[in-house]
Parts: sequence; structure tokens; C-alpha cells
Amino acid sequence: MSDRETRHKKAMQKLKSHVDEKIDNATEQRGLLLVFTGNGKGKTTAAWGTVTRALGYGYKVGVVQFIKGLWECGERERLIDDDNLEVQVMSTGFTWETQNRESDTQACQKVWREAERMLADPSVYLVVLDEITYMLKFGYLEFEALKKALDNRPSEQTVIVTGRNAHRELVAMADTVTEMQETKHAFNSGIQARRGIDY
Amino acid sequence: MSDRETRHKKAMQKLKSHVDEKIDNATEQRGLLLVFTGNGKGKTTAAWGTVTRALGYGYKVGVVQFIKGLWECGERERLIDDDNLEVQVMSTGFTWETQNRESDTQACQKVWREAERMLADPSVYLVVLDEITYMLKFGYLEFEALKKALDNRPSEQTVIVTGRNAHRELVAMADTVTEMQETKHAFNSGIQARRGIDY
Repeated sequence: MSDRETRHKKAMQKLKSHVDEKIDNATEQRGLLLVFTGNGKGKTTAAWGTVTRALGYGYKVGVVQFIKGLWECGERERLIDDDNLEVQVMSTGFTWETQNRESDTQACQKVWREAERMLADPSVYLVVLDEITYMLKFGYLEFEALKKALDNRPSEQTVIVTGRNAHRELVAMADTVTEMQETKHAFNSGIQARRGIDY
Repeated sequence: MSDRETRHKKAMQKLKSHVDEKIDNATEQRGLLLVFTGNGKGKTTAAWGTVTRALGYGYKVGVVQFIKGLWECGERERLIDDDNLEVQVMSTGFTWETQNRESDTQACQKVWREAERMLADPSVYLVVLDEITYMLKFGYLEFEALKKALDNRPSEQTVIVTGRNAHRELVAMADTVTEMQETKHAFNSGIQARRGIDY
């Protein structure tokens, strides 16, 4: 065996033993709270990737879209025929389009009741609260209401929260938090949002 | 109108005009090069979210999995019946399991030829090169080969590259780069990887 191969093999063995040790230490099994936050592309997209994954095993999934609900949305179209998927959308769409605090609050509260129902249902394996962070930021939804529903949810249920500026206490509660940071974005170089890629 | 409502409306109008201006400035239309990198959860997941999205519009998609290919994988199962989806997987699976440089290089080159075919095919709207960054890092694939195939691809084709430690020149070439940073990960708190969520 050449020196290079020996070094490579050694490095791979070290990596393997590191990963194996981690796997051995991971013994707890329960539903997770995941937060995808930050200013970069990929938060909602990763949530839908997980939805696709869970549906692949036949699990029931609930998605509540707090902002992009009225947008054309390829991933919803692709999966919506799946009997195990329920999608609820906030009816006003982009809040900076409507600019009406009262009607936005009402629309938020209405769809939040659907979220609460999913978060109380042990048959729902995965709940996605897409862009709910903005509802907290704008004051359309109280953090305490979200916290209570998350704390009381069935132990096997996983929840994904997406959106920028995740509430500090939400981050503290979460099991897994990824900060999606924008290094660069095509949109800022004058390239149009692309069908099937960006929406 | 109360002061709070006036302030809210003003803030929303400012946000709207900012977004509208960006939309007006975005006039270029072409396929994109996206890179999902960083040490956090969500890179492959966001790639599959985009796959689901593109399939939702009936576009053809090619996915090449350079590492996780032999893992059980819910998202692949959910979508594999779609005639518009082709998935190619590298046959050795996790490279730190095999620890054989020569057979890994051969396996990589074999599946790379499938990737090259997709990257030359104008009917393929989206190509995902999942975890290809490790192939560059381990020296199983030359960066120049990847660069050439990306440079010569059809102009309407979008490519997503995922994996940690993205090559500096690849980041420079890309239109959109998101660094998925791990704030925390359940696995490190002793919680097992979860079916339908993590794989």
C-alpha cells in the first residue's frame, strides 16, 4: 500500500470511529423540534424536503404556510394528491402586500387554529410551521401560544419551524437549529426568480 | 388609525417598495448554479425540496448521490415513480465505511459519467450533485472536470451542489450560495437519527 493510501485509510478509520461513537451515544428516541432560520435560501425548501422524506415512509404530515401560501408553489402541487398530506395556508398572502394589521392578525389566528389542531394530533408525525417567525415578529401571534402548543404536543411528533429571526426562546427549546446564511443570492445579481427552482 | 397601525403600515410599505424594486431589477433569465454548503442540517434536504418543486411543474430532474446513495432514503422512495426523475447513486455508500481509495475512486468516476451525461442534456431542467464536494476533497474527482461540465451545460439548466467545504472556485462560480450553519444538532445531545426526518 502506498503512503497516500495508508494515510487515507487512517483518516477514514478515524472518521468512522468518530461517527460510530456518536451513533452509539445517541440512544434517545422522540419527536424533534427543528428550526431553519437565517437570511439565506433553503429554509422552506429544506422543510419541504423533509415533508417529501416523511411521506416516503407513509407518515402523516401537516404543513401550515403563514406567508407564501398564495404563491404558486411547485412542491405543494407535486405532493398535494398524497392522502397523508394536509396543507393549510394563510389567506392573505404576503403581509407587505396587504398592509392591514387587523385583517392580517385575523388571517393568522384563523390558520393558527389549524396548526393547533395538528400539534395536538398524535397521528400527525411531522408538522411544518412555515414562516411562522414573522407572525411572532409582527405580533400577529403570541410566542406563549406557540410555546404552549409545542410543549404539549405528542412526544413522537416532529415540528419544523422556518423563517428569519427565530425567537431566542424558540431556539433554546429546539433540538436542531440550522442558520441558513446567505453567502450570495442570484436575485441580488439581477437574475429572476426561477420557476421550479425558487418557487 | 392608531399610531401602532400607522407605524406598521409604513414599515410594510417600505418593505414592499424594497422588494418591488428588487423584482424590477431582476431581468436576467437562465439556469442557476446553487451551492448548499456548511456543517448544518438541511443541505441535501433543501436539494430534495427543490427536486420536489421542479417535478411539481413537470420538469425533468436528475439526481446523483455521491455518498448517501445506499442509505434508506424516504424522499427518493416518495418520488422515484415519477417518470421525470432519474436518480443515480454511487455504489460504495459511505466512504469511511469502505476505506478503500482505489475502489471508491472507481465508483465515483462511474457515477460521475452519469452526471456528465445529465449535465450535457438540455432536456434536464435540474441536476443535483449531492455531496460531490467530498469527492473533490478526497481527490476522487478533479475540480477541473466538474468546472468544465458546469461551464458547458445548457444555459437553461439549473445545478445544485451540496456538501461541506465547497471548493473556493465553485463558490465563486455559483449564483446562489447558502452556508447552512449548525447552531445545534439533536444528534449531539444523544437523540437518535429519526426515520422520515433525518433519512
